[in-house]
This record gives sequence, structure tokens and C-alpha cells, in this order.
Amino acid sequence: MFESAELGHKIDKETWEKEVPGLREALLDAQYNLLQKKHNAVLVLVAGVEGAGKGETVNLLNEWMDPRHIRTQAFGPLTEAEQLQPHMLRFWRALPPKGRIGIFFGSWYTQPIINRTMGEISRAKLDQHIEEIRHFERMLAQEGVLLVKFWFHLSKKAQKKRMTEIEKNPETRWRVTKHDWEFFKLYDKFYKVSDHVLRETSTGEAPWIVVEGVDHRYRGLTVGKLLLAGIRDRITEAPAQKGKKAVAKAVSHAPPLLQPAIDGKNVLASLDYTRAVSKKKYEKDLEKWQRELNLLSRHPKFRERSCVCVFEGQDAAGKGGAIRRITQALDARFYNVIPVAAPTEEERAQPYLWRFWRHLPQPGNFTIFDRSYYGRVLVERVEKFCREEDWLRAYAEINDFEEQLDRSGIILAKYWLAITQEEQLKRFKEREKTGYKRFKITEEDWRNRKQWPEYERAVCDMVDRTSTDIAPWTLVEANDKYHTRLKIIKTLCARMEEKL
Amino acid sequence: MFESAELGHKIDKETWEKEVPGLREALLDAQYNLLQKKHNAVLVLVAGVEGAGKGETVNLLNEWMDPRHIRTQAFGPLTEAEQLQPHMLRFWRALPPKGRIGIFFGSWYTQPIINRTMGEISRAKLDQHIEEIRHFERMLAQEGVLLVKFWFHLSKKAQKKRMTEIEKNPETRWRVTKHDWEFFKLYDKFYKVSDHVLRETSTGEAPWIVVEGVDHRYRGLTVGKLLLAGIRDRITEAPAQKGKKAVAKAVSHAPPLLQPAIDGKNVLASLDYTRAVSKKKYEKDLEKWQRELNLLSRHPKFRERSCVCVFEGQDAAGKGGAIRRITQALDARFYNVIPVAAPTEEERAQPYLWRFWRHLPQPGNFTIFDRSYYGRVLVERVEKFCREEDWLRAYAEINDFEEQLDRSGIILAKYWLAITQEEQLKRFKEREKTGYKRFKITEEDWRNRKQWPEYERAVCDMVDRTSTDIAPWTLVEANDKYHTRLKIIKTLCARMEEKL
Repeated sequence: MFESAELGHKIDKETWEKEVPGLREALLDAQYNLLQKKHNAVLVLVAGVEGAGKGETVNLLNEWMDPRHIRTQAFGPLTEAEQLQPHMLRFWRALPPKGRIGIFFGSWYTQPIINRTMGEISRAKLDQHIEEIRHFERMLAQEGVLLVKFWFHLSKKAQKKRMTEIEKNPETRWRVTKHDWEFFKLYDKFYKVSDHVLRETSTGEAPWIVVEGVDHRYRGLTVGKLLLAGIRDRITEAPAQKGKKAVAKAVSHAPPLLQPAIDGKNVLASLDYTRAVSKKKYEKDLEKWQRELNLLSRHPKFRERSCVCVFEGQDAAGKGGAIRRITQALDARFYNVIPVAAPTEEERAQPYLWRFWRHLPQPGNFTIFDRSYYGRVLVERVEKFCREEDWLRAYAEINDFEEQLDRSGIILAKYWLAITQEEQLKRFKEREKTGYKRFKITEEDWRNRKQWPEYERAVCDMVDRTSTDIAPWTLVEANDKYHTRLKIIKTLCARMEEKL
Repeated sequence: MFESAELGHKIDKETWEKEVPGLREALLDAQYNLLQKKHNAVLVLVAGVEGAGKGETVNLLNEWMDPRHIRTQAFGPLTEAEQLQPHMLRFWRALPPKGRIGIFFGSWYTQPIINRTMGEISRAKLDQHIEEIRHFERMLAQEGVLLVKFWFHLSKKAQKKRMTEIEKNPETRWRVTKHDWEFFKLYDKFYKVSDHVLRETSTGEAPWIVVEGVDHRYRGLTVGKLLLAGIRDRITEAPAQKGKKAVAKAVSHAPPLLQPAIDGKNVLASLDYTRAVSKKKYEKDLEKWQRELNLLSRHPKFRERSCVCVFEGQDAAGKGGAIRRITQALDARFYNVIPVAAPTEEERAQPYLWRFWRHLPQPGNFTIFDRSYYGRVLVERVEKFCREEDWLRAYAEINDFEEQLDRSGIILAKYWLAITQEEQLKRFKEREKTGYKRFKITEEDWRNRKQWPEYERAVCDMVDRTSTDIAPWTLVEANDKYHTRLKIIKTLCARMEEKL
């Protein structure tokens, strides 16, 4: 969830000064348009890490738009009187009416996340809260409210730096209390809990937008532009068809809010593709890790567990070679490699995930998917083999699926093999030259290559939405095959050690 | 949830013999049609109370249709091997492919309900299971699977009778074990847990159908007819538009499955409208209960609680008079009567429930709704003031709302005042004659009266779907005003006593 918000996103002063005037005007226009048409309310939730610029951004929005028609409301801990009332009452009271914009500073997310971080409520209780929130937000969406949820994120290091800075400055020192430092100690726990909550509540109707909070220009421009995109999407609805349309929009309004980062940075572009390993080191280390993996596969505890490996990557990224280096270490009776291509007739007669369920490993076994159920949000999305609503709902379905696997003791390891466009071209040409590799390169590969940017965007969305604590993606810089294979086998061993 | 399945539904032999041949033929036709068109699978879940005829009904379905294309699968407790695998795996494996009918005998509901009844899992854990199930069933619906969920119900008395009968018969004695009697002791708990689970999982995509299990002809014919209605609804979809249509259907496919009981019995028709009380007894008892209510309203514990009363009923059923008998007992500073009519402009600019949230009582107070948020599933449904999907989703939203009130300590009391059509006519005419009551009778009342059957159906659906353990409906036979008022004030006192 937070990978994309730890890349050091930045907007320079020049870009800022060039873009802000136009954005302000457009936002103001959109705001008045909304006010006139009056058939949608907009509710902006502002949440996230301390020190990530939440307050500054809210001030910015009030400065950029007409604050008379914005209702900004901050929610602290419950007062004694409020504790005797249903806890959603204060949020109902503050809901913006149609045509208006409401900004909630602290929301229905604050208490559940903090309470769980402090260990005051159980995981099951937290999940109850999550479901209540989903029901509530679903109702809002169906009533035509546009919900825009911003989460301001800072990495642990960045938060520490930020708090120290504020503390050093005599003018702002008062803003960091002892309590803030106490809470900072719980950063890792807070990260885990937020990650879970955000993923579970990042629905089609109301997706979370995670904003890196380090650079004030980046976060301001991001929030302004996305809010504008959201409102514009609503005001283009013809009020006449309001009833029908509102529902259709609610279900699929994610796309206008889900944009690539405004500075062009993303998890794939941020990889260091020059990473490489010498042949000598590769041979030595590979043997060591294969031995290690073999030992782990015969670990007594593994008899009651099993392992699912997922391999995805651009064409010619070296999935096959990496998989072979893993299977070499395993006893052939205990693994299955499942190459995933178009579904069979039998598989097409079943729900999408059925063909992956059927290949789950027996206890003590490995299933290695060479391409996988992630095809739904990669090739099927890009090539439009399925409808937008199908791939949009697939993120949640896949997370549910992987959570079930994890809960039953299956170890999950997911790899994205990333190569650069140049490296791919080189490999394609080599394959065409080499007789026995010719079968590996088809017209389709050349066609896919043309859609590189669409695939890149799909991969980034996939990582943002399905890299979970229980099933993280490992992004592998795969321009160098030796580095690729070593990194994969090493992380697989680490993952198994952690889980056994 | 179960009120409608304790009315002693019955189908006589003659009707049965007249209807079965046609039904069998139609079912067989539908089955073959489904098989040909092949774009939907049908999955029938059979669950419920022991001894309510689950097995017999499954046999019947297999007898009535072509059993070669039906896959009946029973699920018992998990084997040791299955316990090491994700617990949904065995259900995935048994899913029927497109064009086929699957019958699951025991399903993903069995374990969570039994485990909670035995106290082996917490309420929060149960809610986690419920959410998993909702996600799973939602996915199935979106993939085009028609899910038909039958719950076979027996009242406690009926179950005991049934088990004793089976035990007495030497041929069937083996079917009732000591374990069954042990479990029977937990009937009340089982009832509570099932009620909660069924309500939470009775969604638009996959509503529960509760079938009274006493009469074998009634339950057989009900199941056959509803299954037929469900399949027919699916096979009339043109396969060409499959993609688009399937989703639209999934969201609103409840109606073909939600039919009034085939024998015409319902909770309103089953009331005893002759109940009456003498004036003398009324005056004496009323005073006693008003005193009691007054004491309860000043109970020290009530200072941290509050009470919401909901009054609904046919026009001229006597809501106003009953409400006055309650407010007479209360201190005017501590109650508010909210007459609910068309929403104001301010209220129309907000989500539907907003105008009820704003009137929630302060601690120590009463809010009495004269008509209420139930208008959504009554007048708005019948008069088509809102769309079908809006009132369909309102049941779940209202249940969520009431659960939040209950959790915050608000005591809920809901009354439906039921009069017969004849009594209403008499009262309308009286009102027209009596000068000071003339304002109480309008053209609209006469119009509403013409839609009596539609209102009756809406009321029965409302009771079935919103009479919960935390907020049960009290149905009041309201032909006699004295009886009405006494019954209401008595139940209100009982409810408060129970909660304080």
C-alpha cells in the first residue's frame, strides 16, 4: 500500500508556480459548478501519519477554493457526552449537503487504527470496525456522495526527521509533544495496522489515495489535481439522469481518482537496473542457496505447511530461468510448475479464481505459478479481455484469496521480474537469432511491447493494491540474470525461514 | 427472520397432486434450457434446523429433475487433511460449472453457526466469518452464479415433536442420536446465532429463503417453485448480452426469489383481530402501566441510556392515540415526538437516514417516531418514490443503523399497528362524519387503501428482514383501541425493564 509513497516524490518550484494558478481557477470553477448543480456532495477525508502535512494541505484547499462553501471539521477523541451516543453520530451531523464540499480532519478511521495500534482492541474487533466502515461508505456512495480519501504517508525515517526538525525550530516546537514521541515508537505496528485497514477499505466506490508527505509542493499539487478530477467527473453527469447515473458512477468512479503520480515516479522506474553479479559469485552463491532451500523444504514444520510462488514479469524477463533454479533445489515429487495461459473450456465454465484454487499445493509441497491469477489485473486489464468492473473487483478478490491461503498456513512468495525496454529489445533480437529459442518469441510479444506504458501502469497499481504484509511483492531488477536468480532464491529462503 | 416460518404453513394433498406434475415438467424444462444456454451455474444451499426435512427435499429435487446434471454434495466436519488446507477449498472444488445445478447440503454456513452456538468462537470472530462469506457470495454473483439459499426452520416446539416422532418409530430411531438431543438443548442460542447470520448474509445478490419445515408438501412445493422462478429468471437473459446483464441481474435478482408464501399465510393475516379489552379493565390497567413507565423513565440507569420508539401502521390504525398514552406518562422535558412526513429541502440534500440521525435522543430521553425510516420500505416502495435498488438496500442499512443505536445503549421499541380492511373502512367513514376529525382523512388515505395488498406484502417483508433480536417488531392487533394501547405500553415497559 505504501511502497509508492516512499519514492521521494518531488515537484520543483518552477513547476509549482507554473501549475498552481491554473489549478486554483479550475478548482474554483468546479466548486461553483458543483454548488449550482447540487446533486452531489463531496467529502474529503484527510488522514495519515503525524507530521506529513495534513493540516497544511487542508489550509491550502481552503485557500484555493471558496472557504464559505467548504465545511472543515476536525474530530478529536470522543467527549464524555459523545461516548454515550452512537459513535457515528458526530460524522452524520457533519456531513456536507448536496452541492457542498466537506473536509474531515480525522475521521471514522482514526479511533479503530489507533486503538488497534495500542493493542486495545483485537484483530477481530478491528475487522468488525472495518466492515461497519465499508457498509457506511457504500451507503454514502449509493446516495451519490463523492468520497475522496487521502492518506498522508511518511516512512519511519522521514517521520523521525520531520519531527526532529519541527522540534528544533523554536516557533514550532510546541507542536511535537512527548505523546507524539511515545506514539512514534509504535511506528511499525501503526504501519501494519494502517496497511491492513487501508487495503480492506480501498473499495471501488471509495479508493484510498496514498500521498507521500515529504515534499509540500508534491502533496499539495497531488491533492488539488485529484480532487479536481473527482469533482469534474461528478459535475459532467447530466442532472436529468441523476438517479440512474449516480449508481453507475459510484461503482466505477475509481478511475478518475486513480492516476499515476504527478511527478512520473513509480515503483518500477525507481529500481536500479544496473545491479549485477559476477558469474563466479553467482555460481558459488547459487549453490549455497539451493542447498539452503532444499533443507528448508525438508524442514519438519514444512510437512504441515506448503508454499505458493507467483512469477510475473515482462516478456523475456527471465521467469523460466529463475523458476528452474528453484526447482533444481527441490525434490520433483514435491513441486508443481503451473504455466498459466488462456483458460481451458472447463475452466471458463467456472468463476475466475477456480483454476488457481485447483492447483493449490498439498501439505509439504510447492506450487509455482509461471504467470498467475494476477493476469486479471495485468494482461486482461490492458488487452481489455475483461470489463473494467471485473479487474477492479479482482484486487479485493485476490487479497481475500491470499488471506485465506495465508490463514491456512500456505507461504506466499510473489515476484515481479522487471527489465528495461532496451534490455527487452536486446533479448527479443537474440531470441530471433538463436534457433532453439525462436519458439519463445512471437508476434504477440512484439504487440505487447508496444503497450509498455499501459503495462507499467497496471503493474504499479497491482503492487500498490496487492503488496500486503502477508503476501508482499518482491520487485526484482532483472536486467542481469545472475542477480535476478540469486535475489529470488535468497528472498524465498528468507520468507520460508520467517514462516517456519 | 423466522417469524413467517412459524405460522403453521400447510398445503393439502389435493393442491399438491394438482400442482406437482406441472412443476416437475417446468423444472425439467428449465434445467435443460440452462444446460443448453450454459452461461450460468445454479448453486442451491440447503441448511437449517435438524429434522426440518432437508434431506427429503434434496431427494425430491433429484427426483423431479434429471439427476445426471445435478451434483449433490454433502459437507460434514473437516477431515484432518482438510484442516491443513484453506477451509473454502472443498467448496471451490465442488462448484457446479456453467449450465449445471449444484446442491450443497451443509455449506460454508455450518461451521461458523455451530462453533458460535457451542461458544467456541467469539462474536467478533463470527462476524469475520460472515464478512468472508459475503465477499465470497458477492464474487459468485458477479461471476454469474445463481445462488439460492434455503433455510429450513422449525420452532423449538416443532423440533422437539419431530425428534420424538422419529425416535418412536423403530425404523427411523437410528436417525436421532444422543448428540442431537444435546444440541437441542442449545436451541435458543442456535436460534439467536442463526438469526444474526441469516440477516447479515441475506443480501441483494443472495437472499435467504426461510422455509417452514413442518409440512412436507408445503416445503417441497415452496422449494420447487422458487428454484423454478430463479432459474427461469436466468435463462430469459439473452446470452449475447450476458456480460452486461449478468451484473445488473446480480444486484437485483432478489425479487424473483422473494415471493409471498405459497399457501397465502403471513404474519399479518395470522393475527387475531378479535382481541379486545373492556373499558373498565383498560382504565385500571392503563393507569398501572403509565405509573410503571414513569418509574422506568426515572430509573437511575436510564440517565445513561435513551429510548427510540417507532410507530408504523395502516392509516387510521390509532398510532396517535397510542403515542399520547405513552407521552402522558412521561415528563415533557424528556421526550420528543417526531411526526415523519415528506422530507424538507435540507433533508433531501442529505443521505436518506440523515433526518433520523438528527433526532436521536440525548441520554435520559425518548424519541418517538410517528412513522419513521421504515417509510423507505413501505410507502416509498409501494408508491415507487424510490428505485427498487434503493429500498432493497435499505433493509441492510436500517439493520446497520439499529445495531449502532443498540450498541450505544439506546433501547429500541418498534410497533406495527395492524387493523383489518373492514375496520379501516369503518374508521374512515366515522372520521368523515365527525367534524373535528375531518382533517385526518384525505384523498390520499383512500388512494393508499386501494393498494392494501401491496402494503401488506411490504409489511411482511419488512418484518421478515428487520425484526431482529436487538430490535424486534411488536405486531399489535389494533382493531380494538383499548387492547392496542395496553399492549403497547406493556411491551414498552417490559423492553425497558429487560434492558435496564
